[in-house]
Amino acid sequence: MEKNIPYKTYLSENEIPTKWYNLRADMKNKPAPLLNPGTLQPMTAEELSGVFCTELVKQELDNDTKYFDIPEEIQNFYKMYRPSPLVRAYCLEKALDTPAHIYYKFEGNNTSGSHKLNSAIAQAYYAKKQGLKGVTTETGAGQWGTALSMACSYFGLDCKVYMVKVSYEQKPFRREVMRTYGASVTPSPSDTTNVGRKILAEHPGTTGSLGCAISEAVEAATSTEGYRYVLGSVLNQVVLHQSIIGLESKIAFDKIGVKPDVIIGCAGGGSNLGGLIAPFMGEKLRGEADYRIVAVEPASCPSFTRGKFAYDFCDTGMVCPLAKMYTLGSGFIPSPNHAGGLRYHGMSAILSQLYDDKLMEAVSVEQTAVFDAATQFARVEGILPAPESSHAIRVAIDEAMKCKETGEAKNIFFGLTGTGYFDMVAYQKYNDGEMTDYIPTDDDLAVGFAGLPKVDL
Amino acid sequence: MEKNIPYKTYLSENEIPTKWYNLRADMKNKPAPLLNPGTLQPMTAEELSGVFCTELVKQELDNDTKYFDIPEEIQNFYKMYRPSPLVRAYCLEKALDTPAHIYYKFEGNNTSGSHKLNSAIAQAYYAKKQGLKGVTTETGAGQWGTALSMACSYFGLDCKVYMVKVSYEQKPFRREVMRTYGASVTPSPSDTTNVGRKILAEHPGTTGSLGCAISEAVEAATSTEGYRYVLGSVLNQVVLHQSIIGLESKIAFDKIGVKPDVIIGCAGGGSNLGGLIAPFMGEKLRGEADYRIVAVEPASCPSFTRGKFAYDFCDTGMVCPLAKMYTLGSGFIPSPNHAGGLRYHGMSAILSQLYDDKLMEAVSVEQTAVFDAATQFARVEGILPAPESSHAIRVAIDEAMKCKETGEAKNIFFGLTGTGYFDMVAYQKYNDGEMTDYIPTDDDLAVGFAGLPKVDL
Repeated sequence: MEKNIPYKTYLSENEIPTKWYNLRADMKNKPAPLLNPGTLQPMTAEELSGVFCTELVKQELDNDTKYFDIPEEIQNFYKMYRPSPLVRAYCLEKALDTPAHIYYKFEGNNTSGSHKLNSAIAQAYYAKKQGLKGVTTETGAGQWGTALSMACSYFGLDCKVYMVKVSYEQKPFRREVMRTYGASVTPSPSDTTNVGRKILAEHPGTTGSLGCAISEAVEAATSTEGYRYVLGSVLNQVVLHQSIIGLESKIAFDKIGVKPDVIIGCAGGGSNLGGLIAPFMGEKLRGEADYRIVAVEPASCPSFTRGKFAYDFCDTGMVCPLAKMYTLGSGFIPSPNHAGGLRYHGMSAILSQLYDDKLMEAVSVEQTAVFDAATQFARVEGILPAPESSHAIRVAIDEAMKCKETGEAKNIFFGLTGTGYFDMVAYQKYNDGEMTDYIPTDDDLAVGFAGLPKVDL
Repeated sequence: MEKNIPYKTYLSENEIPTKWYNLRADMKNKPAPLLNPGTLQPMTAEELSGVFCTELVKQELDNDTKYFDIPEEIQNFYKMYRPSPLVRAYCLEKALDTPAHIYYKFEGNNTSGSHKLNSAIAQAYYAKKQGLKGVTTETGAGQWGTALSMACSYFGLDCKVYMVKVSYEQKPFRREVMRTYGASVTPSPSDTTNVGRKILAEHPGTTGSLGCAISEAVEAATSTEGYRYVLGSVLNQVVLHQSIIGLESKIAFDKIGVKPDVIIGCAGGGSNLGGLIAPFMGEKLRGEADYRIVAVEPASCPSFTRGKFAYDFCDTGMVCPLAKMYTLGSGFIPSPNHAGGLRYHGMSAILSQLYDDKLMEAVSVEQTAVFDAATQFARVEGILPAPESSHAIRVAIDEAMKCKETGEAKNIFFGLTGTGYFDMVAYQKYNDGEMTDYIPTDDDLAVGFAGLPKVDL
């Protein structure tokens, strides 16, 4: 081990960035605009303001402003759990016997257990500032719902969470954490909304999906005075808030004098990956530096690697605007044997455009291989990773093993988005040898694609 | 908020202490020696070596050496999750509207979820160095078992955990974390040991106790070739390892130029509290500084506040040496409605002596008041605290409210030993308004006291 690079690099509190970086400002090909599902015209700020907080709508639509000031209240909240450490994985390197140098940015050291808190606190802040009573949202694995509950509790906002039914059942303790922070939690699909009742009637045995939970949360927000809907991933504004991850990482790398060669992140809706890579991709877009950037997704929900780049609904109920993105179709629901998160059918419009422009790569991995990597990582690095994060670990290990073959001492950097403390049902399945893999057939995917809206632009 | 004191103070990696501090060296009245339960003579190193690792026996018996070098392998492991932050609780202060300044040392940012890892890695290291195959232990809430599983996995040692039955049932996910780290977990009392079978026969419906699980683990260790028993609290060696908490805290306080007025920690077996206060108590013993030091225990298991200072068995099965400590009697088993950890009948001999010498105070608190404090803390400080840790939060808040009355800007410092992610059954009970308090009557306590051994010294 080199003595000059610490296990963990922390920024001091006054080194924490005070501005978010808007990657879109440096993109030549901007992400396509959201479309009104009725008129197929770009959504205006006014139209979006019925669903989202006004200030967040501004952030959503702004492709030009390069930096947004982080309000002081949010900076103060960040100081409660940030900076997150940039970790040199000395023990993993040793276990792999690789010449590669492995680094990860660990976002799990907060009660939500993941990076989601970075955007939750921002969205709750703007909702409070606007004088709203509360917000609604959906949650899959529960990390976003927990993060939003924490943020709402901090600012004294009401918080209604629609939780994907399969996760609600597998993760009762997540529900209790949200309740401890004062949120109400409803399994989705539910009979509390029109769209929920419709989905239940059509698919009585459904285990739910993020797309479906989004529809319910949007309906609950737009039909209740003083409420708006907030979303934990996919949207441009969320990628903006998550840029704090990449910005901190970049400062830490500069401090230790290291430049990553390959940057790896898991991709569900894309906000963690978008935030992680933001300043690095910015350098790449401006021609100042080059990095290999790899998105990792589950083979059972392969938006990038097998999806279409097309306008699609963000939600199953088709009440949300259309986004141009890599998508499996809003009707796609991953197999219930899928335990590893990242179940969303679409992908951030920003990342979709970057991927289409060949500025980044994508790979898909199967879940048993992901849990192999998770367990190996946990045993040597101590941290029990979230299944989602473990997708990135899988590929980081694969890259490190390639370095072992070639003898290259590459700097491999991945985002460790969170911890798996509430994923023990999935770990138990893995520990008991009962975990299986699932790769949708082309026919399975055709069902989702058939539901894509016809948009000519 | 003062701008000069950060929310979190981290030491740099090269500021992490490289020696443990042995508080006993500065004590005028040393803790009483362990006694052989058969001869009632002080246990020799040779006798103890049948149960414990040789190097740990040396640490256990050494009342004179002031500092012990931390081996490099342990230092490296510490670097994976240490230093832990010293946090200024600005948000809690604001919520309480108190002039007090509140600080806490947060030990929960690791997968075991608590400070227990500090000693687990040390004990696993010495077992490995001695060439053992594995170790056995007991666990209550599961934090110690998880910590030991992680440590054993790191050094490639086998790990057998006897888990108090009530916790085993309430915390199935803890079991899965331990299994993920390769440990075997048995609910205690079990039919795998003589002492377990005996206890089951006498108390068929028992929910178990730490004392009983200790007996089983000791029997399993001493009856299996190449195994030793390790213990997560109570012992002098554990207090020694946990001194890392206090040592780091002291350095961090010196960095920010603050001297705590009152130091508060929860006390089950006493190792967290002993470690937290070590360097501060050292100054007090040497007459260099004064601090108010407060141990907090549950009203349902009040070893300090209602126990006797006497020689007692460390375990229910009476196979372990006798220790002179504040105790409720090894036959004392807390009511099963007690959800908040800290269920051990006795207390560290070091702390017991310090308490008897009036160098520290003790208070007991009821569990609904503890969960009130836990929830209040979680909502403003973000961290969801372990029930054990929340005993200290309760008293820290009470002290801060006294400052509000008197207008004093005291520096209140408490140990936040861990997170409550695996305690959601208890939180659910609290959230549902179903949590009750329990204070043993004098008659209840008399049962435990009746079983105290007759030792005249």
